[in-house]
Amino acid sequence: MKVAIFFGSKSDKEIMKGAASALKDFGVEYKAYILSAHRVPEKLMEVLNDIEKEGFECIIAGAGLAAHLPGVIASHTIIPVIGVPIKAELNGLDALLSIVQMPKSIPVATVGINNSYNAGMLAIEILSIKYPELKVKLVEFRKNMKEKFIEENGEGVEL
Amino acid sequence: MKVAIFFGSKSDKEIMKGAASALKDFGVEYKAYILSAHRVPEKLMEVLNDIEKEGFECIIAGAGLAAHLPGVIASHTIIPVIGVPIKAELNGLDALLSIVQMPKSIPVATVGINNSYNAGMLAIEILSIKYPELKVKLVEFRKNMKEKFIEENGEGVEL
Amino acid sequence: MKVAIFFGSKSDKEIMKGAASALKDFGVEYKAYILSAHRVPEKLMEVLNDIEKEGFECIIAGAGLAAHLPGVIASHTIIPVIGVPIKAELNGLDALLSIVQMPKSIPVATVGINNSYNAGMLAIEILSIKYPELKVKLVEFRKNMKEKFIEENGEGVEL
Amino acid sequence: MKVAIFFGSKSDKEIMKGAASALKDFGVEYKAYILSAHRVPEKLMEVLNDIEKEGFECIIAGAGLAAHLPGVIASHTIIPVIGVPIKAELNGLDALLSIVQMPKSIPVATVGINNSYNAGMLAIEILSIKYPELKVKLVEFRKNMKEKFIEENGEGVEL
Amino acid sequence: MKVAIFFGSKSDKEIMKGAASALKDFGVEYKAYILSAHRVPEKLMEVLNDIEKEGFECIIAGAGLAAHLPGVIASHTIIPVIGVPIKAELNGLDALLSIVQMPKSIPVATVGINNSYNAGMLAIEILSIKYPELKVKLVEFRKNMKEKFIEENGEGVEL
Amino acid sequence: MKVAIFFGSKSDKEIMKGAASALKDFGVEYKAYILSAHRVPEKLMEVLNDIEKEGFECIIAGAGLAAHLPGVIASHTIIPVIGVPIKAELNGLDALLSIVQMPKSIPVATVGINNSYNAGMLAIEILSIKYPELKVKLVEFRKNMKEKFIEENGEGVEL
Amino acid sequence: MKVAIFFGSKSDKEIMKGAASALKDFGVEYKAYILSAHRVPEKLMEVLNDIEKEGFECIIAGAGLAAHLPGVIASHTIIPVIGVPIKAELNGLDALLSIVQMPKSIPVATVGINNSYNAGMLAIEILSIKYPELKVKLVEFRKNMKEKFIEENGEGVEL
Amino acid sequence: MKVAIFFGSKSDKEIMKGAASALKDFGVEYKAYILSAHRVPEKLMEVLNDIEKEGFECIIAGAGLAAHLPGVIASHTIIPVIGVPIKAELNGLDALLSIVQMPKSIPVATVGINNSYNAGMLAIEILSIKYPELKVKLVEFRKNMKEKFIEENGEGVEL
Repeated sequence: MKVAIFFGSKSDKEIMKGAASALKDFGVEYKAYILSAHRVPEKLMEVLNDIEKEGFECIIAGAGLAAHLPGVIASHTIIPVIGVPIKAELNGLDALLSIVQMPKSIPVATVGINNSYNAGMLAIEILSIKYPELKVKLVEFRKNMKEKFIEENGEGVEL
Repeated sequence: MKVAIFFGSKSDKEIMKGAASALKDFGVEYKAYILSAHRVPEKLMEVLNDIEKEGFECIIAGAGLAAHLPGVIASHTIIPVIGVPIKAELNGLDALLSIVQMPKSIPVATVGINNSYNAGMLAIEILSIKYPELKVKLVEFRKNMKEKFIEENGEGVEL
Repeated sequence: MKVAIFFGSKSDKEIMKGAASALKDFGVEYKAYILSAHRVPEKLMEVLNDIEKEGFECIIAGAGLAAHLPGVIASHTIIPVIGVPIKAELNGLDALLSIVQMPKSIPVATVGINNSYNAGMLAIEILSIKYPELKVKLVEFRKNMKEKFIEENGEGVEL
Repeated sequence: MKVAIFFGSKSDKEIMKGAASALKDFGVEYKAYILSAHRVPEKLMEVLNDIEKEGFECIIAGAGLAAHLPGVIASHTIIPVIGVPIKAELNGLDALLSIVQMPKSIPVATVGINNSYNAGMLAIEILSIKYPELKVKLVEFRKNMKEKFIEENGEGVEL
Repeated sequence: MKVAIFFGSKSDKEIMKGAASALKDFGVEYKAYILSAHRVPEKLMEVLNDIEKEGFECIIAGAGLAAHLPGVIASHTIIPVIGVPIKAELNGLDALLSIVQMPKSIPVATVGINNSYNAGMLAIEILSIKYPELKVKLVEFRKNMKEKFIEENGEGVEL
Repeated sequence: MKVAIFFGSKSDKEIMKGAASALKDFGVEYKAYILSAHRVPEKLMEVLNDIEKEGFECIIAGAGLAAHLPGVIASHTIIPVIGVPIKAELNGLDALLSIVQMPKSIPVATVGINNSYNAGMLAIEILSIKYPELKVKLVEFRKNMKEKFIEENGEGVEL
Repeated sequence: MKVAIFFGSKSDKEIMKGAASALKDFGVEYKAYILSAHRVPEKLMEVLNDIEKEGFECIIAGAGLAAHLPGVIASHTIIPVIGVPIKAELNGLDALLSIVQMPKSIPVATVGINNSYNAGMLAIEILSIKYPELKVKLVEFRKNMKEKFIEENGEGVEL
Repeated sequence: MKVAIFFGSKSDKEIMKGAASALKDFGVEYKAYILSAHRVPEKLMEVLNDIEKEGFECIIAGAGLAAHLPGVIASHTIIPVIGVPIKAELNGLDALLSIVQMPKSIPVATVGINNSYNAGMLAIEILSIKYPELKVKLVEFRKNMKEKFIEENGEGVEL
């Protein structure tokens, strides 16, 4: 199980670390590419041509502004593409709409603005359909999350 | 391979048919439930408790307004949940934001406003990771879509 | 007279203090819970099951992003639920719409973005219908507010 | 138990019938006033001056555009005011923001755009704190709503 | 010629100084009042009752959030009211819509967000219809503004 | 007392009739010009050059889309300019922002979207500073408006 | 002088006729292609590869929703690309932002929502830099537009 | 080949440097003018009257708020005008809409918010139609951009 992470500029790196951190926690292999749909489209196509052969089964793509990267990738592969809108202008509303409003037949699975951690979690949920060991880990993760949440927050917080 | 489709009211039925139509075309079994997160939460929980045992591997949930259904479902299962924002007020912007802006750890894979067909397509892409026969069909589908598109539209359209 | 305050994460604590401060000033007892609709839904249900038995008569719930907490609570109780949209992304517009646009039959009494103090005041107004002593205090509060306002601001401010 | 319903123009009548219909179903007495905060402010004040003496315990106010009516009423009484944003321009976003974004100390309990039925339901929930017979009816209402919902929608809807 | 300036809270003082500064430059007398439409409505009415008798001929009112102050004033007087939306939440969009979208018959002359200087200038333009000396000053002001602009910026700026 | 009404296209005529109707009711003379800031800027300048000589004391300008007309007029005269945002795309939000957000020193008195009647009323209020007979009529108008409102709507409307 | 017009679906044809109509009026040759960036990306690339060789000097591209077409084309050619946002959901705001917010170095010359006529006019202005005969026609066009405008609208329109 | 750059205030200088920097890199001559459409309209007309005679072939105009400058320039010349929305209030959405939503026949080629560099690049692309040496440089620029991008970012970035 291998996930490819794409984003279009070094400045998106900090935001996209969230996706990597989720994948690491679940022991899912990933490879990250900085490739812009607008600046190096041919290089992007080249990488996408081999994406299935190299064993990637899910793609995460983050982009800001007129965020075309996730949609462009989705049009070149049948692997599920998860889109992360990155806030640059207009509080990220431009990126959100540019990613989520895809035309009929070419979906992008969009998560929240700057929420690349959830892109990682979604990739894990998607892969867990095929890989039962991930399902076990997800169940465990939720259980721990709940226990930790209750432990930390308890009842009757002081305000 | 089985997909569960949820929506909260009979009035969303027409929109949600798009998801069913995509699944039918790919021979993916599905079952549709009208269950509201706010009106019948206990019944929803009851159905969700058995969702994995009944063999569902992916969930599609459509909702309008303060569209909580996809997120509520996602918090009760580790099966990937695809959210469809349904337009009711504010051109569907309320539903889009209520679905896509999920908190850390509980993602919903959001598609475009009223675009339940893409929710179906995304479910198929997700299931195709595990089921190679779907991958074959997806490749075929894309090939046909392209051929039909070119055939129908051609070049030199009259304006 | 007892009010329950809910919010989904420690990071919302500072904002939610406003509600507590209003309740304290009016001598209304309250208890605050950090409980997330998405991360610990079962624990939330558990607490809500006892909410009436424990004598709570009004609920305040704050949430950000796809702010489902107030609506989820409202679907599990007939106690009036006051929702506070907390600003996290998109200046809080996502939280506002996720809270206020509830479907038919399950209302949430929504106040302004980050304005948890007003949630507290609304709870007091609501409880004052039953508790005449609160009505007396509210009349007093308004009177003092007016006097203090006029005293502090007077007429003819220098600009 | 008596609710006052206010709105600013005959053209809002159809929308505001929703509030009346909820109140009727629960046997809550109400009186409706067409009174504009901007066109007949003195008459509005006159009516508000007697509002408590006449035994009203909750107020519902609907308004569109720069929807000041609910806030103006709230500044003249300590009775809880429920605001209904009515869609006229900008899909009702102007009315929503004009109602919900009240300043510190003077809250308006805002419901969804054009959703006056929920304003009625919220009034009932609020009054039920004092009137146990309403609480019984609310529990019954929810029970019936759930049964009817499940009966009508069942499981396995055809798409 | 005398202008009354109203705003609802000390925190709006810095923004409202712009209006005063324009009026001072043109030698127009003004008096500033901090009076909230929601917190001290009776005091506001009291001041408005005398507003014409005291010789005020134009009113400037600044407000943020659900910015009712300008509209409430406009409903109590036939003196022209200029509204200044003050940014507090949602970048001032809530205040802008709450001020500009007034119902038929009760207009508020709205200027840009936080742009109280323009409210002052508009008051001067309005008063200049009656007071020819202001017209002379306005012509002079525009002439100077143009000369100073051209002098300062010249042609062919270096970039 | 004479008001000039400007708008940029025959298609805005219906909307702009509201301004004329208010002026007619108050016996204020007006002249209407269809002149586009973008299509016939020289002709517009020509008309504006004589605007004061011809005795106009107030200007109303309506425009849609990138609604520059009111601002362009304001930059060529010191007569107060009232701007009417006309809905064409984006529900009129583009026109509203293009009119209200004028830079320092050149204000446009903006009224609500499509609300040209209020532009007429605002012009009357502005002129009434100089013309006492208009003040008398305004007081009368408000009185009649109130009486008619109360007569028509009465108390206790049936819902 | 030859312009290529691209759009992604037959349903955009009516809107895109505006561009063709402007070009026809100025005797500029054009060829229209229905080619989707997402459905037939390879075919689009194929056509774009020959776009310069075939003598096209300017490109017009219309798209709705997550409107990637203009930006994708711009990333594959150095010919100026004019983007037309086509209204489908959210009043065209999604298409506008998806087209105009292009990243550094790859601009798209964006025109108004559904305003493909202006895309045609902009192409003509751009080509007129090289082709003096177009400049002559543009000057003539503006002159006629002005004369016709004044003739049709005149002064003193009846309202 | 010469480009004129216009903007309305010294405070926009930093943003507009991006346009100049692109033009410098391509050896395109430019001249920058600080001229406001609202404050010095006559001076602006004066400069525009000579704009063609002075050999300018393309215009870049940046503006914030009710950003009329690009549209006003476009209405006085047939030279292509590129508009840069500058962020001042509302995250630049006001400026974007005021620039892009031009009426039929008078287009402005709009680029992204604060993205004046892209305005420079678009001017270069436009001029390259006439000047083959620019075309050569653009091809080179894209080639270098791609090589540098790939060199700097490579594959397998660490996250």
